[in-house]
Amino acid sequence: MTDEIFMQMAIDLAQKGCGWVNPNPMVGAFIVKNGKIIGRGYHQKYGELHAERHAIADCRGSTRGATLYVTLEPCCHHGKTPPCTDAIIASGIAKVVIGSIDPNALVAGKGIEILKNHGIEVVTGVLTEQCEKLNEVFFHYITKKTPFVVLKYAMTLDGKIATRIGKSKWITGESAREKVHLSRHRHAGIMVGVNTVIADDPLLTSRLPDTKNPSRIICDTHLRIPIDSKIVKTAREIETYIATSCDDQEKIEPLLAAGCILLQLPKKNGSVNLNELMQRLGEKQLDSILLEGGSTLNFSALENGIVNRVQAYIASKLFGGETAKTPVGGKGISEVNQAFRLKNREITILDDDILIEYDVMGGV
Amino acid sequence: MTDEIFMQMAIDLAQKGCGWVNPNPMVGAFIVKNGKIIGRGYHQKYGELHAERHAIADCRGSTRGATLYVTLEPCCHHGKTPPCTDAIIASGIAKVVIGSIDPNALVAGKGIEILKNHGIEVVTGVLTEQCEKLNEVFFHYITKKTPFVVLKYAMTLDGKIATRIGKSKWITGESAREKVHLSRHRHAGIMVGVNTVIADDPLLTSRLPDTKNPSRIICDTHLRIPIDSKIVKTAREIETYIATSCDDQEKIEPLLAAGCILLQLPKKNGSVNLNELMQRLGEKQLDSILLEGGSTLNFSALENGIVNRVQAYIASKLFGGETAKTPVGGKGISEVNQAFRLKNREITILDDDILIEYDVMGGV
Repeated sequence: MTDEIFMQMAIDLAQKGCGWVNPNPMVGAFIVKNGKIIGRGYHQKYGELHAERHAIADCRGSTRGATLYVTLEPCCHHGKTPPCTDAIIASGIAKVVIGSIDPNALVAGKGIEILKNHGIEVVTGVLTEQCEKLNEVFFHYITKKTPFVVLKYAMTLDGKIATRIGKSKWITGESAREKVHLSRHRHAGIMVGVNTVIADDPLLTSRLPDTKNPSRIICDTHLRIPIDSKIVKTAREIETYIATSCDDQEKIEPLLAAGCILLQLPKKNGSVNLNELMQRLGEKQLDSILLEGGSTLNFSALENGIVNRVQAYIASKLFGGETAKTPVGGKGISEVNQAFRLKNREITILDDDILIEYDVMGGV
Repeated sequence: MTDEIFMQMAIDLAQKGCGWVNPNPMVGAFIVKNGKIIGRGYHQKYGELHAERHAIADCRGSTRGATLYVTLEPCCHHGKTPPCTDAIIASGIAKVVIGSIDPNALVAGKGIEILKNHGIEVVTGVLTEQCEKLNEVFFHYITKKTPFVVLKYAMTLDGKIATRIGKSKWITGESAREKVHLSRHRHAGIMVGVNTVIADDPLLTSRLPDTKNPSRIICDTHLRIPIDSKIVKTAREIETYIATSCDDQEKIEPLLAAGCILLQLPKKNGSVNLNELMQRLGEKQLDSILLEGGSTLNFSALENGIVNRVQAYIASKLFGGETAKTPVGGKGISEVNQAFRLKNREITILDDDILIEYDVMGGV
């Protein structure tokens, strides 16, 4: 029972790194001696110290004989920092309690083996499910090498993302919109189709204090993005990718000059190949993407199997309208049994709005 | 506290009349003497005994000096049955505890007055809110003289009621569909547009055992209903109204011959005037209607302010499709602040589906 309590505390602490450590995992650690906490730490920022080293440095007094609680198996390879196993062995810690095994092929149980070989007692399987959930993005990214994609939309209870004349400010209330901005901070990238840029001229930033802005990815097969859009004008401050199949230098030059990064991709069914785009973004260390539509891009993303999760914000309103846009457009499926199926429901009440989240079954 | 317990029991008992007593209210009653229940009763069927008389008849031993708990103010007028106040006075009951006041202008506090004038102690305000909720349909109907209309639909999480080629069997799972069939039993009528009849050829019956079938109302401005549809073919067994603005006798005659009841109505914006239809159905003692679309009729109903409540069943599926039907179509609103607003949310989990219910603000 005590193990679970310290592990839960480590999970809670780990989350403070959310949005700052990508594409690394969030990790939290507690060091306990004679039943008392003598040190704690978490992975705070990509490229900086890991949780275990922060926790060891945090200790007052000797760590000899102490127990380390850590949400993820300690690393044993040289990355941006030296192996954590070295630090643990050097500290004299006698026992390590681990939440989840690192699926990174460079670790994957080897960290545990090294600790055991140095006479350290290792306990695994403590709150494993919670620890894996904490890092579902990392677990996906490290094994698939592509970003974890969350399809997010806000709609009315009758399934509209805008009125028939395209008005959408605001469908949901303040709490829901605040949650979306926090979600932008948490994700490495935010992706929209060029039609959204043309229609709404958004910035796609996080408006909350102490948050970071995600990289922006615009799917723009034919390079129709306006050179005077807010996105292009702020491309020097916020990383901005334009995914395109257009090689017209007259269109490309001004975008490059404005600071955009062009990703040249082959077409698939008339649009940029989203599977290749995901691979390219994975190579660029983007572990997670918040996909904010519009409805044509959302369908393409589902059709190409790149969506891992759906976040549907549902407002207590009805718009009606035969021609009003819905969250997922495109061609659509024809038979009911071809539907994209969803599992692992979560419901969150946000004042007048409801957030319904699901994992997409059969996603990449 | 004891009062609340007996009143809650009376509410639970009243619900056994659900679907059978319309357009009367559901009423439950308990008779208690020296702290012991000596009789109970509920209104079982329209036209038959009221709850109070059932409860008095149920008593073994004398009712003299007993307390009657009843969810609704006892009636004091001659309707299908003589006044309950007479029976209460004759029984020697000393105290009457009442949940909600009867808003029927023929009663409306007069029942209480008569009891008091006969030296009976009357207590009101016990679980009033719950008693009013129990009979929200009756309270609406008796004051407005039009049916309480519930807009019901089943959609995917991306707001589709069918795939792009019109397939909709089945969007939701068995639990949700069972709840819909129970809902059909509870309502006096079920209403659809003629397009739904043409597309799906439904029966619109309740498929559950021990339930009744609602009257069917088909909105069919131009009398396009197929004479060989299941609805028309079963019009002799199940009351079937065709609401139309068409006076073509060649179309009308075969429908009348098949047992349909034609309601001739003026047009409003090219379709049958729904407000007048509601008045006509109210005159025909239909106190409640389950509106099951399609999307054009649903918008008209909202636009004309006849919808009181929305029941949205949301499945854990995505269909996509620019042209796939959504629950509320029609013209739609243009500005966000013109949206139909919803309040008093209720969420029910039904296996893989979610039922979200709201009252419509500003409904008639």
